[in-house]
Amino acid sequence: MENEYVKEITSKSQDFSQWYVDVILKAELADYSPVRGCMVIRPYGYAVWENMQKLLDARFKSTGHKNAYFPLFIPESLLKKEAEHVEGFAPEVAWVTHGGQEELAERIAVRPTSETIICSMYSKWIKSWRDLPVLINQWCNVVRWEKSTRPFLRTAEFLWQEGHTAHRTEEDAEEETLKMLEIYRDFVETDLALPVIKGRKSENEKFAGALRTYTIEAMMSDGKALQAGTSHNLGQHFSKVFDITFLDQDGQLKNVWQTSWGVSTRLIGAIIMTHGDDRGLKLPPKIAPVQVIIVPISSQKKDMVLNKAAEIFARLKQDFRLEMDDRDEYTPGWKFNEWEMKGVPVRLEVGPKDIEKHQVILVRRDTGEKISVDESEINSKLKSLLDEIQVNMFRQAKRFMDENTREIEDFEEFKKVIEEKRGFIKTHWCENGDCEKFIKEQTGATLRCIPFEQDAGPGRCIVCGKEANKVVYFAKSY
Amino acid sequence: MENEYVKEITSKSQDFSQWYVDVILKAELADYSPVRGCMVIRPYGYAVWENMQKLLDARFKSTGHKNAYFPLFIPESLLKKEAEHVEGFAPEVAWVTHGGQEELAERIAVRPTSETIICSMYSKWIKSWRDLPVLINQWCNVVRWEKSTRPFLRTAEFLWQEGHTAHRTEEDAEEETLKMLEIYRDFVETDLALPVIKGRKSENEKFAGALRTYTIEAMMSDGKALQAGTSHNLGQHFSKVFDITFLDQDGQLKNVWQTSWGVSTRLIGAIIMTHGDDRGLKLPPKIAPVQVIIVPISSQKKDMVLNKAAEIFARLKQDFRLEMDDRDEYTPGWKFNEWEMKGVPVRLEVGPKDIEKHQVILVRRDTGEKISVDESEINSKLKSLLDEIQVNMFRQAKRFMDENTREIEDFEEFKKVIEEKRGFIKTHWCENGDCEKFIKEQTGATLRCIPFEQDAGPGRCIVCGKEANKVVYFAKSY
Repeated sequence: MENEYVKEITSKSQDFSQWYVDVILKAELADYSPVRGCMVIRPYGYAVWENMQKLLDARFKSTGHKNAYFPLFIPESLLKKEAEHVEGFAPEVAWVTHGGQEELAERIAVRPTSETIICSMYSKWIKSWRDLPVLINQWCNVVRWEKSTRPFLRTAEFLWQEGHTAHRTEEDAEEETLKMLEIYRDFVETDLALPVIKGRKSENEKFAGALRTYTIEAMMSDGKALQAGTSHNLGQHFSKVFDITFLDQDGQLKNVWQTSWGVSTRLIGAIIMTHGDDRGLKLPPKIAPVQVIIVPISSQKKDMVLNKAAEIFARLKQDFRLEMDDRDEYTPGWKFNEWEMKGVPVRLEVGPKDIEKHQVILVRRDTGEKISVDESEINSKLKSLLDEIQVNMFRQAKRFMDENTREIEDFEEFKKVIEEKRGFIKTHWCENGDCEKFIKEQTGATLRCIPFEQDAGPGRCIVCGKEANKVVYFAKSY
Repeated sequence: MENEYVKEITSKSQDFSQWYVDVILKAELADYSPVRGCMVIRPYGYAVWENMQKLLDARFKSTGHKNAYFPLFIPESLLKKEAEHVEGFAPEVAWVTHGGQEELAERIAVRPTSETIICSMYSKWIKSWRDLPVLINQWCNVVRWEKSTRPFLRTAEFLWQEGHTAHRTEEDAEEETLKMLEIYRDFVETDLALPVIKGRKSENEKFAGALRTYTIEAMMSDGKALQAGTSHNLGQHFSKVFDITFLDQDGQLKNVWQTSWGVSTRLIGAIIMTHGDDRGLKLPPKIAPVQVIIVPISSQKKDMVLNKAAEIFARLKQDFRLEMDDRDEYTPGWKFNEWEMKGVPVRLEVGPKDIEKHQVILVRRDTGEKISVDESEINSKLKSLLDEIQVNMFRQAKRFMDENTREIEDFEEFKKVIEEKRGFIKTHWCENGDCEKFIKEQTGATLRCIPFEQDAGPGRCIVCGKEANKVVYFAKSY
């Protein structure tokens, strides 16, 4: 029965893409829906999202941001106001054309992102330098009518947060943009155990309508990159078009400087693809809906075991997100497999022999290690163990990323490595968009970011051979 | 300057409807948007919603419910599966017909409610009695293309939660329906200080597709009713159409019994209309984004006053949601008006004389009462004061509802009272839908609910004079 459970999952090395979908369905994170390209986030997956929201929202609020809610719908004329922006988003907009029985006079977009509707309000709200900065975030759904979709990574509808801020000066806006990028990095590395590279997007890869886009890039365990969060300095692109002006202290009427930044449910996809293995999901303790699963092993002395398990459950309930699996209809082995599939960081086993010895067994999901713990020390041991697992998961992922990041200065080698090994390639680039496009055409790899950390000296562009001051990351990506 | 501030609000007795909108705009709860019928919930209004969500979500979770997320979009064919349901909702559906440049083969509804899409998933997930009950809730946006709209009360898009559960037996479903109604009553009365009448909807007024709809009805301070929350026993209406079956313990394949229940951001409208006055909003402490506003009165000894205010702020920060208004550009009087407009339950004033006496002044928003409190006792006094305000606000609203609930058994008097005084009318009704419709046509009042509490004996129907065992509530409503 145990083996049956595992068999249903494709092996990761055999077919990464199928493994990914298998884990999502089998761990009940999400399911396909009858609507093209839309998924259902099931309770277990949504609980991960709720934990992520809590941790991120606290960071937003502690830096002075407030949540608000703007309409789902954006009139076509509004969406079209900023030229680059509409060009970037129009091809994937879902259009509402009828309300009830009536055809609408103007088509309405289901928001692909909310810059335009929010700018239309900011132009009404902001009048004086005293009104600045405006620091607003919203948690919501957005829709992008994508051709091909994958659960969490690319769906027609997804959940995200989008921050939209307005500032008095260019410096303030840049400071905010970088502050939010750092908040993302801290959240993703600390809470999701996903190591990232911080940097700037190239002109080709930046957000439609932005002055500059900053990004954190993670590496999935198949060596492909995933953009884990972006923060945009919008400059005055939108404030000029939407006429967002304020009377400054010097009596001059000026346009505000803006930023926007977001992360989405695709981060759940990143967690799956970075940490998971052939036994299923591995969830970092900080965002795991169930941090500890108690499994009573009760083939004999059943009552005693169940009582002890209940006693331990009651004792730990305040300090951990934990559940008890005392279902009669499954064997312990089957349960082990199921909770491993669901990525629960620690399994706590209680059996008759353990009770005699006044101990329990803790089993780590990340390493498989079994630890006997004295009953009196369960609480403190669990605390330190969850911390250790969190750190270890980050460390493992970081090691993988480092091992799969290669410095390459020869284009033929670049092609070969991208094809055979994937991973990140660090190389010199002359900052010419044509060289970047050439690489994309030839290899399928895109410029992921121009890292803040420039540890190599100057060199020559891997494509054109001209002088190049920047080292950049290329990779295939999700 | 103080008078200037207040002047901008229409008086409640003069024009209730304009007063309502004035308060919303002036207190910055919400604003009109450039999209027909859609509003923007501003940070202050959204913070009220966040507090409500927290309190309600905790109740859902403590009764075993889990959150999930289902798609925004519902294919037309799916929406049409349950006949009564589509008849009820089709007239107000927003239709997506194009994705990017392409016309869709089938129109897609923007969800007006999610029974159909959720049922399509439940039919896939539920197989055995072991899978039951399924207790799922979702927090999301829904769209109903209403002809005429009002902020919070009726908007094309609104935020709500919708619970959707599936059960083994009819009894289990009925128990759940009533349990959730009671959770709503408790939440609305305890946390929002809104007294309600619990009861059942008539056949004419029930949810499209439900077997029975239960409701809690509140009374606004203009005497009109507002449906504050509903809980539907869906019976097997949907489970038969969507083929949601399970293998029961007796080996039989059976259809599940279902419920759905929801409350929305319209409750914010109810808070405004129940508690507000000519000075603006009055927020119950339990959901007020700012429970205490500290206003330093610092025309002289400014540094000393600001230091003391900061010291008090630091001391109270952990226990209350509080803010400090130390803006230089406004007078204390102007600030008093602004924070009263925003409905903050308690104002804490610190002035040079108070400091000499080692005291502060607390001013209640609900009664206007001023209380001198010794510095050492601020914390405990504030705690008890906020509790007292919460209870007092409920008591005031309850008294108003009781005073405006009239037992009437004569139809001419009914018409006169509804026209001149509004309020709830308790009267006998024969349970015939035609008599109910006659009242609606003649008076504009609808049957709000058949209350659980049937304290009058049998009598005669106010319309047809036939024997009537039920006393019911009629009112004009939002």
